[in-house]
Amino acid sequence: MSKYVYFFGPQGTEGDATMKNLLGGKGANLAEMAKLNLPVPAGFTISTEFCTAFFAEGRKFPQSLRDEVATALRKTEEAMGMKFGDAENPLLLSCRSGARASMPGMMETVLNVGLCSKTIPGLVKKSGNERFVYDAYRRLIMMYSDVVMEKAEDIEPADGKGVRVQLEHLMANAKKNKAKALGKAPKDVSDTDLDTADLKRLCTSFKKKVQEVLGHEFPDDPQEQLWGAVGAVFKSWEGRRAVSYRKIEGIPADWGTACNVQSMVFGNLGNTSATGVAFSRNPATGENKFYGEWLVNAQGEDVVAGIRTPNPLNEGTKNSQNQHLPSLQTEWPDLYKQLDDIRANLEKHYRDMQDIEFTIQEGKLYMLQCRVGKRTGTAALNMAMDMIGEGLIDEQTAVMRVQPAQLDELLHPIINPAAEKAAEAFLTGLPAGPGGAAGKIVFTSADAVAAAKRGEKVILVREETNPEDVEGMRAAEGILTARGGMTSHAALVARGWGKCCIVGAGDMKIEMAAKRMSVGDVKLKEGDLITLNGTKGRVYQGALAMIDATENPRFQGFMKLVDKFRTLGVRTNADTPQDATVARQFGAEGIGLFRTEHMFYGVGSDEPLFFLRKMILSKTVEERKTALSELFPFVKQSMKGTLEAMDGLPVTMRLLDPPLHEFVPQDANRQKELAAALGIRPFDIKKRGESLHETNPMMGHRGVRLGVTYPEVTEMQLRAMFEAASELKKAGKSPKPELMVPVTCGVKELDVTKVIFDRVKKEVEQQQGVTIDCLYGTMIEIPRACLTADAMAKTAQFFSFGTNDLTQMCFGFSRDDIGGFLPDYLDQNILPADPFQTIDQSGVGQLIQTAVSKGRGTRGDLKIGICGEQGGDPASVEFCFRTGLNYVSCSPYRVPIARLAAAQAAIKAKK
Amino acid sequence: MSKYVYFFGPQGTEGDATMKNLLGGKGANLAEMAKLNLPVPAGFTISTEFCTAFFAEGRKFPQSLRDEVATALRKTEEAMGMKFGDAENPLLLSCRSGARASMPGMMETVLNVGLCSKTIPGLVKKSGNERFVYDAYRRLIMMYSDVVMEKAEDIEPADGKGVRVQLEHLMANAKKNKAKALGKAPKDVSDTDLDTADLKRLCTSFKKKVQEVLGHEFPDDPQEQLWGAVGAVFKSWEGRRAVSYRKIEGIPADWGTACNVQSMVFGNLGNTSATGVAFSRNPATGENKFYGEWLVNAQGEDVVAGIRTPNPLNEGTKNSQNQHLPSLQTEWPDLYKQLDDIRANLEKHYRDMQDIEFTIQEGKLYMLQCRVGKRTGTAALNMAMDMIGEGLIDEQTAVMRVQPAQLDELLHPIINPAAEKAAEAFLTGLPAGPGGAAGKIVFTSADAVAAAKRGEKVILVREETNPEDVEGMRAAEGILTARGGMTSHAALVARGWGKCCIVGAGDMKIEMAAKRMSVGDVKLKEGDLITLNGTKGRVYQGALAMIDATENPRFQGFMKLVDKFRTLGVRTNADTPQDATVARQFGAEGIGLFRTEHMFYGVGSDEPLFFLRKMILSKTVEERKTALSELFPFVKQSMKGTLEAMDGLPVTMRLLDPPLHEFVPQDANRQKELAAALGIRPFDIKKRGESLHETNPMMGHRGVRLGVTYPEVTEMQLRAMFEAASELKKAGKSPKPELMVPVTCGVKELDVTKVIFDRVKKEVEQQQGVTIDCLYGTMIEIPRACLTADAMAKTAQFFSFGTNDLTQMCFGFSRDDIGGFLPDYLDQNILPADPFQTIDQSGVGQLIQTAVSKGRGTRGDLKIGICGEQGGDPASVEFCFRTGLNYVSCSPYRVPIARLAAAQAAIKAKK
Repeated sequence: MSKYVYFFGPQGTEGDATMKNLLGGKGANLAEMAKLNLPVPAGFTISTEFCTAFFAEGRKFPQSLRDEVATALRKTEEAMGMKFGDAENPLLLSCRSGARASMPGMMETVLNVGLCSKTIPGLVKKSGNERFVYDAYRRLIMMYSDVVMEKAEDIEPADGKGVRVQLEHLMANAKKNKAKALGKAPKDVSDTDLDTADLKRLCTSFKKKVQEVLGHEFPDDPQEQLWGAVGAVFKSWEGRRAVSYRKIEGIPADWGTACNVQSMVFGNLGNTSATGVAFSRNPATGENKFYGEWLVNAQGEDVVAGIRTPNPLNEGTKNSQNQHLPSLQTEWPDLYKQLDDIRANLEKHYRDMQDIEFTIQEGKLYMLQCRVGKRTGTAALNMAMDMIGEGLIDEQTAVMRVQPAQLDELLHPIINPAAEKAAEAFLTGLPAGPGGAAGKIVFTSADAVAAAKRGEKVILVREETNPEDVEGMRAAEGILTARGGMTSHAALVARGWGKCCIVGAGDMKIEMAAKRMSVGDVKLKEGDLITLNGTKGRVYQGALAMIDATENPRFQGFMKLVDKFRTLGVRTNADTPQDATVARQFGAEGIGLFRTEHMFYGVGSDEPLFFLRKMILSKTVEERKTALSELFPFVKQSMKGTLEAMDGLPVTMRLLDPPLHEFVPQDANRQKELAAALGIRPFDIKKRGESLHETNPMMGHRGVRLGVTYPEVTEMQLRAMFEAASELKKAGKSPKPELMVPVTCGVKELDVTKVIFDRVKKEVEQQQGVTIDCLYGTMIEIPRACLTADAMAKTAQFFSFGTNDLTQMCFGFSRDDIGGFLPDYLDQNILPADPFQTIDQSGVGQLIQTAVSKGRGTRGDLKIGICGEQGGDPASVEFCFRTGLNYVSCSPYRVPIARLAAAQAAIKAKK
Repeated sequence: MSKYVYFFGPQGTEGDATMKNLLGGKGANLAEMAKLNLPVPAGFTISTEFCTAFFAEGRKFPQSLRDEVATALRKTEEAMGMKFGDAENPLLLSCRSGARASMPGMMETVLNVGLCSKTIPGLVKKSGNERFVYDAYRRLIMMYSDVVMEKAEDIEPADGKGVRVQLEHLMANAKKNKAKALGKAPKDVSDTDLDTADLKRLCTSFKKKVQEVLGHEFPDDPQEQLWGAVGAVFKSWEGRRAVSYRKIEGIPADWGTACNVQSMVFGNLGNTSATGVAFSRNPATGENKFYGEWLVNAQGEDVVAGIRTPNPLNEGTKNSQNQHLPSLQTEWPDLYKQLDDIRANLEKHYRDMQDIEFTIQEGKLYMLQCRVGKRTGTAALNMAMDMIGEGLIDEQTAVMRVQPAQLDELLHPIINPAAEKAAEAFLTGLPAGPGGAAGKIVFTSADAVAAAKRGEKVILVREETNPEDVEGMRAAEGILTARGGMTSHAALVARGWGKCCIVGAGDMKIEMAAKRMSVGDVKLKEGDLITLNGTKGRVYQGALAMIDATENPRFQGFMKLVDKFRTLGVRTNADTPQDATVARQFGAEGIGLFRTEHMFYGVGSDEPLFFLRKMILSKTVEERKTALSELFPFVKQSMKGTLEAMDGLPVTMRLLDPPLHEFVPQDANRQKELAAALGIRPFDIKKRGESLHETNPMMGHRGVRLGVTYPEVTEMQLRAMFEAASELKKAGKSPKPELMVPVTCGVKELDVTKVIFDRVKKEVEQQQGVTIDCLYGTMIEIPRACLTADAMAKTAQFFSFGTNDLTQMCFGFSRDDIGGFLPDYLDQNILPADPFQTIDQSGVGQLIQTAVSKGRGTRGDLKIGICGEQGGDPASVEFCFRTGLNYVSCSPYRVPIARLAAAQAAIKAKK
């Protein structure tokens, strides 16, 4: 029989922090804390292995598990000196999920398990607080009926018909009645105004309603409650929210969650009890200051849920929203001191920033959880650099501490300070996710998703966010909520993504139904523009100007460290001197892809496109040559500018790639205009467009195939490149052009093109009186090119993988057309990820590996790179490193990300 | 130094018949004949290796070659007792091409080399025939100036400006003058009417014209003539005609040609001289009778060129065209006897039918050439079967003797005898290529090619054909010429391809310029329909009905023999009971590809398409299910019919493959009609069509991807298949369905579909009370499927390679769009062949091999087939055999071809 249950507590903890995969993050850390003799309430963890078995075996509990649980429960009872289900001295339990990776709020928790008609009197007697017991009981009924009896049974009630909503109605009614009795306005009555009798009545009506709504009685047996809760926790792994989150975060379904069953301690046992969450350093900025929030007389969920604005943990945590509230540091300095010592111990022990949950029960501190804390990219980078200085970690570890994607936020725009100075904030809130964001207001997650699909930038404005909002938060540029603290759902999720976010902007009134909001006199509606400063928590009307945040010295220092470990080259895909310059500032070591055709796509002058069209519409080779000679100076100028911007670094120039029909106007008016300019009939243009039309243009007459049929087009481009390089060289520069032939499927295409290359090179060299060094290579983007790479490398001096097209051909997926089925493929888990975002290592990866080994077999020093869009994806960068590529090439803004991913890959490989 | 020159003659022949690759077919056989002591004029062969060196070294002759030639020439002079360039006793030489594979008329020949002012007097004295000498001289000048001085120098004169045409003008003028002098009509004057003085004058004016047209004097030095001729022969290997022919026949460019330099003997030395060509058996029917043609007082070219209708060799060769002409058998019985003995010796020696060229010089027989004779498919099959009976060859050899593609002609249509009986031939000619053909008249090769591209069937009608017509002959359904014999160019080429052909239909008058022809009162013009009976040489007006020629017992016997050696299975691609039945008659062992969608392509009832469209236009799953249930009975009926026709044999049924937009009408009127029938707005149809439109449909929403998004469509097809099979089983039949999932790129698509497969199977089995055996497999047509075949084989019980799509994806070639560049690729030798005709073994082949080895690694008994169109291509069949496939599947008419190719592959592998 497998061992599935691991005890933690004073009499021999069975797990530790290294066992995350088996016990989940929470369980492993509870065990580790218990081992460190921190005050952890005893309990046990049912492992992730059981989760997998549970789903494999039809969601059943085998007897062996029941036996293991009984043993561990006995030890827990001993540790706490109480007994589960005992009438005199009853132990209550919590059941919490805990996966390998943190999934905040995505899975279920049930608290106060074990309260029932048998145990209630004992607990009342023992606590001397009947009201607390019935408050706990009504919480149990509400949570259990919702989580265990409804959600875990896959019951999907109609809107407003869910058991929780109906119980909340009863609760609201009770408060309304109380208000009447107290002569108060209903809004001024809080939960704490309900007295013991009210709560007793409420528990009775709750149980009646549960029976009515769900057709079952609320269970009165502690064991039944326990197993129901454990089952619900495991089932929540396959719940809709968890599955959706996993998809976004790339967490595999087979990891599973663990279930942590732990003795309850109560932060809501009166005014000497409290609960809180804290970070050992500031998770938004990385500052080395203890940072947290707490609430008196509350359960842990109250802090995280963002329903009440929590108190600051200490002076350092105070801000404009909470400065009037009491801090733990001043209220209970001894307990604060104890917690601060634990914080220091934990950081020293884990050598990383910790996210802590604690409860104070009648003046005694308990640690409920510690785990590595989520942080913004800025915080991650700052902490990593600080911790080197503090001697906590070494440089390699520091490099590993920042996720490549997190750098994104450091590169992302902030509001132009000048523009911000001139503007006045109409609303402030908590700075939960740094950076700036501007966009149109939307009020629902669905609207945010829809707008993003239309390509619109939006700010998601919510009362508070909940796990159902995850996709909308992803889609929005920024998030603004009226409620919640720095550890609320919105704040945690936004920081995880490095997204601009402001929470707890309490002055904002939202009318959901009308899709309107107001702040004092300012009235805004859906679609109105606002701008967030997520670093300062300020909200402005209109869209303020943004600037890039590239000149951060801390960032520069970190990137220097990164390059110390990096061996893989990083280039950029850039078609203009401007892009080349930006990429160079970001550390690009050359251009991996310069697209000649860029100049025809409506950027700058119209003339190049006009001459290109003239060339396409030529009827004879002679006419074509004339048009080409008119086009020539533009192509040369474009190449020269980029070569100059990248002076001294290699620039891979790709021959014309797209099919010609892309350049023939489709629209009748445009055809007419063009015809007039060219002195031909519109009919000729229409005709030519039709004759160029292709059924599957992606696999049509493009790339090298154009050069085979129109060698004069290739010749013009080569002459432009060689002349540009010669002129720069004569001006004392060091141009390093590399010629790349696209869409090749065999070596003979390269041979045919090489003849032109050699001839034109010689001609230009003679004419200009200089020699030009220029590698001759090919884009590898057709499966057959990979399969015949041994032959290709006879002529090619370098390969550059065009992973976009290679993915299209390898899968038979047209990137333009996958919208019809790819979402289904991801939903049904047929593919683990969009292969256009991250290299499909099991399929496309094989082709790449084949090409690398065959190519290098022929030419040992073959230079190999990648210039598809996946070149900036960290997992793909790691794959490229492992496969022995020389460099990756990506868009300018992804260059730092690729550099970091490459360094991390090198460090991982050393281990 | 390599040895390039090989002597043949009485004093030690250096080559033999096994050295074909080195000496070419002609050279190897000349050597072999010399070794057999046959009367071969002495000479030597410059090897094919030299041809390769010649082109590699810039078309130059190294000194070492000149030395070797000098030595061999000395030996030749000794053997013949004459001296090259000698004033008294001059030896003349012929220079002929000769490649490894026969390329009739595609390369150059120069005769009478060595005639010049120095040697003419001696030859006049020796032969006592001054007219003969000047006739030979004018032939030399014409041939040499054309072949060596113009063509070999890559001079491309304008139409009518070529040197040959201009010399022919002079010749025609000379004849016109002669006619005046003789008082005859010009058309009644022949070459032989020109006397010595005329010819002398002609030679003088020829030489003047050569100087005028080409700017060089006609060379008067025998050595210069010899080297010019040798160079021209080699250069003709890269000539336009040869290159075009090689492309069609798939002959590699690097084989090269040899050059045979041989002592001249003269068939035109007066009325005791003659020349002829013969086959040791009838090349059209295979009948074991000596068969040939000859001409008195002529050179060899005269017979082959088809300018004069030649005499029959013997009684057996007489036909309606030549029965009035004298046969060699009756004219010169001794010589005939000697030739007939040689024929018997050669057949016994070579154990195959021989194609012989001979010359009789003043009563003495010389053998100029022997080689394996080309034959029709019918002849090949009959000879093979006969030769087994005669003990000449064994069964394996017999199977190897018929080229798979040749079977095509045995399977191709003949004119329906009833229709032919009712019709009256308006023209007769020689039956040069068997079978029937009907089509529109075209008069030029270019028109034939253009019409074939438009998909029109045409008959190419020519005065006589020449090598320039090759592509048009290929494109035409049949060929009809006014002149030429059974061994003329048209006849040889047509028979090589098994194409219907009638030659020497002398009653036909053609007006080329007007594109008209007439036979007596019958006037026809371009585009008019005619029908050829190539087996009988009869031509009919209009298009007569055709029937298939499948029930030939000789053919059946041969195919039985074939199957004795074959191990690879052969199935067919068939979508209807009719196709299935035909294929079964041709020996198909099952269906490798049944396309569900066939029924929607306008065959039979419109109803299935209507319901399919209704399904596509459904807005809800419910509407879609209703439409599917209406479609269901049609799908079931279609499957049932085919399963029944293939009863007892496996039928691979493919799930719906094409993208749905293919079925939505594009045309506004059709949309209107459909909308009315469905009770929806035409706008909805247009809209749906647009929403289904794809940029690259080949890589879009199709195949299994449809099933992933619309599982109910898959379910309907599966239910139809299982119900059809159940019903047949209950009726005592043995249906063997196999389910094939198309366009898969990973195993999870198979897993998702398998869930539906298993469920529906169980449901139908329970409902119908029978069990159904049905393999579950997948089409492998996406590169990624090949690369992940190990995983695919976990679920798939069989693979079937869809080589059409696999080729598209592997090359990135859209089959619909390759017209823009594939011709250039073939012309420029970038690809050796169209990969959609024959499997690209170096690229696509690797994917196939990978899939086979990975798939079998997972599942040892994985059944593997191929169902792409290359399944009927002999080279591809051999590849499939070598790669270990279980079967190939091809169109019904290619089944026998695939069977033969498979047997030949097995025999080759044994060797």
